[in-house]
Amino acid sequence: MFWRCPEEEVETLKEQRRIVVIGGVACGPKAASRARRCDPKAKITVIEQGEFISYAVCGLPYYISGVIKERGALLVRTPAFFKKVAGIDVLTKTHVLSINRAAHVVETVNIETGQPSTISYGKLVLATGANPITPLVPGHNLKGIFTLKEMPDADTILTLITSQRAKKAVIIGAGVIGMEMAEALVTRGLKVTVVETLDRVLPTILDSEMAAFLSRHLERQGVNLLLGQNVTAFEGDSKGRAHRVVTESTTLEADLVLSAMGVRPDTKLAEEAGLVIGPTGATSVNKYLQTSDPDIYAGGDCVENNHLITGARVYFPSGSTANKHGRVIGTNVTGGHETFPGILGTSVLKVFDFTAGRVGLGEGEARAAGYDVVTSLVPNPDHSHYYPGAKDILVKLLAARKTGVILGGQVVGRGEVAKHINILATALTLGCNVDTLANLDLGYAPPYDSVVSPVHNAANVIRNKVSGLAKGLGPAEVKAKIARNEDFILLDVRDKEEWERWRIEAPQHKLLPQEELREQCSKLPKDKEIITMCRRGIRAYQAQRTLEGERFSNVKFLDGSIVAWPYETAGSEQNDNKLLLQTDALPISSSLEEDSP
Amino acid sequence: MFWRCPEEEVETLKEQRRIVVIGGVACGPKAASRARRCDPKAKITVIEQGEFISYAVCGLPYYISGVIKERGALLVRTPAFFKKVAGIDVLTKTHVLSINRAAHVVETVNIETGQPSTISYGKLVLATGANPITPLVPGHNLKGIFTLKEMPDADTILTLITSQRAKKAVIIGAGVIGMEMAEALVTRGLKVTVVETLDRVLPTILDSEMAAFLSRHLERQGVNLLLGQNVTAFEGDSKGRAHRVVTESTTLEADLVLSAMGVRPDTKLAEEAGLVIGPTGATSVNKYLQTSDPDIYAGGDCVENNHLITGARVYFPSGSTANKHGRVIGTNVTGGHETFPGILGTSVLKVFDFTAGRVGLGEGEARAAGYDVVTSLVPNPDHSHYYPGAKDILVKLLAARKTGVILGGQVVGRGEVAKHINILATALTLGCNVDTLANLDLGYAPPYDSVVSPVHNAANVIRNKVSGLAKGLGPAEVKAKIARNEDFILLDVRDKEEWERWRIEAPQHKLLPQEELREQCSKLPKDKEIITMCRRGIRAYQAQRTLEGERFSNVKFLDGSIVAWPYETAGSEQNDNKLLLQTDALPISSSLEEDSP
Repeated sequence: MFWRCPEEEVETLKEQRRIVVIGGVACGPKAASRARRCDPKAKITVIEQGEFISYAVCGLPYYISGVIKERGALLVRTPAFFKKVAGIDVLTKTHVLSINRAAHVVETVNIETGQPSTISYGKLVLATGANPITPLVPGHNLKGIFTLKEMPDADTILTLITSQRAKKAVIIGAGVIGMEMAEALVTRGLKVTVVETLDRVLPTILDSEMAAFLSRHLERQGVNLLLGQNVTAFEGDSKGRAHRVVTESTTLEADLVLSAMGVRPDTKLAEEAGLVIGPTGATSVNKYLQTSDPDIYAGGDCVENNHLITGARVYFPSGSTANKHGRVIGTNVTGGHETFPGILGTSVLKVFDFTAGRVGLGEGEARAAGYDVVTSLVPNPDHSHYYPGAKDILVKLLAARKTGVILGGQVVGRGEVAKHINILATALTLGCNVDTLANLDLGYAPPYDSVVSPVHNAANVIRNKVSGLAKGLGPAEVKAKIARNEDFILLDVRDKEEWERWRIEAPQHKLLPQEELREQCSKLPKDKEIITMCRRGIRAYQAQRTLEGERFSNVKFLDGSIVAWPYETAGSEQNDNKLLLQTDALPISSSLEEDSP
Repeated sequence: MFWRCPEEEVETLKEQRRIVVIGGVACGPKAASRARRCDPKAKITVIEQGEFISYAVCGLPYYISGVIKERGALLVRTPAFFKKVAGIDVLTKTHVLSINRAAHVVETVNIETGQPSTISYGKLVLATGANPITPLVPGHNLKGIFTLKEMPDADTILTLITSQRAKKAVIIGAGVIGMEMAEALVTRGLKVTVVETLDRVLPTILDSEMAAFLSRHLERQGVNLLLGQNVTAFEGDSKGRAHRVVTESTTLEADLVLSAMGVRPDTKLAEEAGLVIGPTGATSVNKYLQTSDPDIYAGGDCVENNHLITGARVYFPSGSTANKHGRVIGTNVTGGHETFPGILGTSVLKVFDFTAGRVGLGEGEARAAGYDVVTSLVPNPDHSHYYPGAKDILVKLLAARKTGVILGGQVVGRGEVAKHINILATALTLGCNVDTLANLDLGYAPPYDSVVSPVHNAANVIRNKVSGLAKGLGPAEVKAKIARNEDFILLDVRDKEEWERWRIEAPQHKLLPQEELREQCSKLPKDKEIITMCRRGIRAYQAQRTLEGERFSNVKFLDGSIVAWPYETAGSEQNDNKLLLQTDALPISSSLEEDSP
């Protein structure tokens, strides 16, 4: 039961009930608000370095792009509101110098006045967040190398853009902020180059083939991608302002340089106070979000989390997690015993008119964790193909071969991505296997889903593979076989018309439409390796089974077929439907795929 | 492992491998296609009474409304396709007269030619579907009382509409087809009345307060609802065509009468063959979807299902379930051992620009099943309030008080309903409790979700109630207290401006804005019953806690507050935002609710 403020306890619990929160965004205010509701009489103080509190950090790229027009919409709360409504004291522009754990006090200084102060606590909450990383290369101290962390960062960038000075931007890092800002800056009319050290966009979210799929869409939007390249220097103009970004292979002119290489947890206070820092470099907390000092809690972007699949400690900052942390901490600093179970590393983001999302482990991570991984790669319309407005999404699902337990999933496309990510997030949290996933009683009606949902299909392809019925090869494997000039047949079972519109050009290619396959297959060599393909993979899989029925000995199908093929293709359609992935625009023959694995 | 057609087995397994499927829509063709892929050499025959097979029944209302323009889009497959591509024989316009289980044959007759035939089977699949119910009242044999089951039904209705003759329609039944057809016919310019025996719309999907919420939206669209009324007779014109529908209280003119009272499983063949029919009146099957005869399988709308929450046998026809059944059956008739776990009764449907959905148990069902039920009723924007285009949805969540296990959920609104239904469907299937639901690592970004998702909020309200922190009263309870003229204070803690725009008028009403509550609460009587309210319930809950902190002894809050209040309200906004529920249009003060429980 929660405290109801019996008057006689006020004195004895006085110290206990002094709650001090360091950090005024996301986790901090949430912890304070929750603590207030759990204990209407506790003394609660929130300390924030900056001018603003409780604002919507995740909205900043959209404020810069102009999608969010009113800056005020992002400023959720004011200190006055907290005081008047919740009886919470908020000190802004206040820097915490140190924590004296023995004395249970924090030493602060007002940044404007220089006025020092000592604030005592019964329970202390560290919600100090994280700081953006910038590349420590020659020139990194030049002016005009921006990061995007706080409201004033957004204000400065927006001023630079709207004052018409910035025409060319270089973004360093193709992670979430990098992608969101690429969209924002292109929307604002800038010419954008993204430089990424790793070999793909969204490297912590998407596996190679999924990232390659998204990259083509980015390039279509005019984004220049420089992947697998490090920034080696910044060069400044006469005013000491960065105006060139030098990479290993080129030099890029830039009116605006944004470093979006990710963030590092702000653990300075915790470290100086002698609290345990975890292997990830973030503050270590137990399941109650308590640090190594039981009177000090920590949450949000400054702590590490338990990964629900691997059980490993991971650093994965997220606004949504920070809010959940805040609630748990608010409960516990007022006498509760709530636990935070952990995270899946779920991400979803808008990338122009595509959405990309991920949950759980990527293929590399899953293999590294020792799993024998089976994957499916399935393009699907996001609702019934005959109901207007259906858009394709590409689903990659990963499961453990032995148990069928789902390990992770990635979804990219113009259709409804977040919806499927959420199904998978719920499934992963609860230890779902592919059999259960394939039979989930999801909400079906033609405007909202196909009668067999994309996640059902993705699960069934894995079941088919595990049972030996389906033999899939991923696009990267097939591409490598083509590149090695291997002796096999890439058997396209689509219509000639479909093939003319859009095709993979390879010496191994052969067209034999599905409708002729039964009659004509005797003309194919029975023992040669055959890889069947079609538009989305269903006909290719059917063809694999038909050929096996005719005692062909070495048949596989191309996972996801041409829709999921992220590499070069030929034909007119590639400029329309493939990258746009609008099922709407598909010819009627595509309904031939209206079956499910 | 799956059969790979070893030639020596063909003879011995010959009879086994003759698969006959009765029924050519959804489950039937799916079973046949799956069987073909599992066994490329089995002899497979599909028998269908009608002219068409494998068409999209669920699309018919949208074909009638004109949203789906091409009739051909609904016709997924032709018999010729099945023959050529899959080697499956399809007999259309063929009626099955009887099943001779001893001889393993079915007796058929061609409906056009009268030609009888005997077809032998090794495994038989019953996918006979269901038949619409019509009211057996005087005049029920008149011409022009339509049902919507098959393509030709849609054709006839559409001809009647487009030939301009039909101006007024009466739909009997406010279930899924009734609602979808109400939208279709209003879209076509008809004046529509829906007559429903029970006291609410979508009675098998929505609890009373959720249904009342949807009803107001239907009425705004011009649909005339006659709830809690039976049809007592049909009256015909001189041509013997129904043109009046008589109910207990009124007589309705009708150019078009549609009976949408639900369906009954078509079990005629099964019953006559002596197969076990279950307590629901549908064919009984085990988890392998085998009937009481191990060589006869059944699936789709003619069988009953296991309910995953109660374990009871239920009749719940669904196109999505039928397809899942088909896959399981296709596997098992070719030697596999796949199981179908059961259903949750998940429904989602479009009702004009609202969506309504449900999963698991309703409140009445849950109580009848013996659960001590806790509910939450939470209106939420479907993505971050500051990102354009957010729309409200109203979530009702039900959990067992003792275990916290989720029992069911309902969602209604203009925003993304199916997405949240799917999270809940996945959660329910896997036995999720409210603690786990509240901490699900869902995909968050401002265009797709709020930092605290609607399902998180719904789970947290239940946790707050179970812990004793929050004390909610539902709208029906509060309305009853007002009606009984009870002595309590309905304390509205919104701003005066919000109150003027939209309010509940009751003698018990008192306005005391949240910002003044701490200072002014001493003027309220400490021991009188106080029910706090605001826009969505968050401020009301905060106020409950504030007053409890000031030692008020009997404070509760109105669940979902005015947004979820489905009864009469006053003020100008009720005509705009309430029923439209567009967060977009809300004044900035609504951001005061940007906190979570």
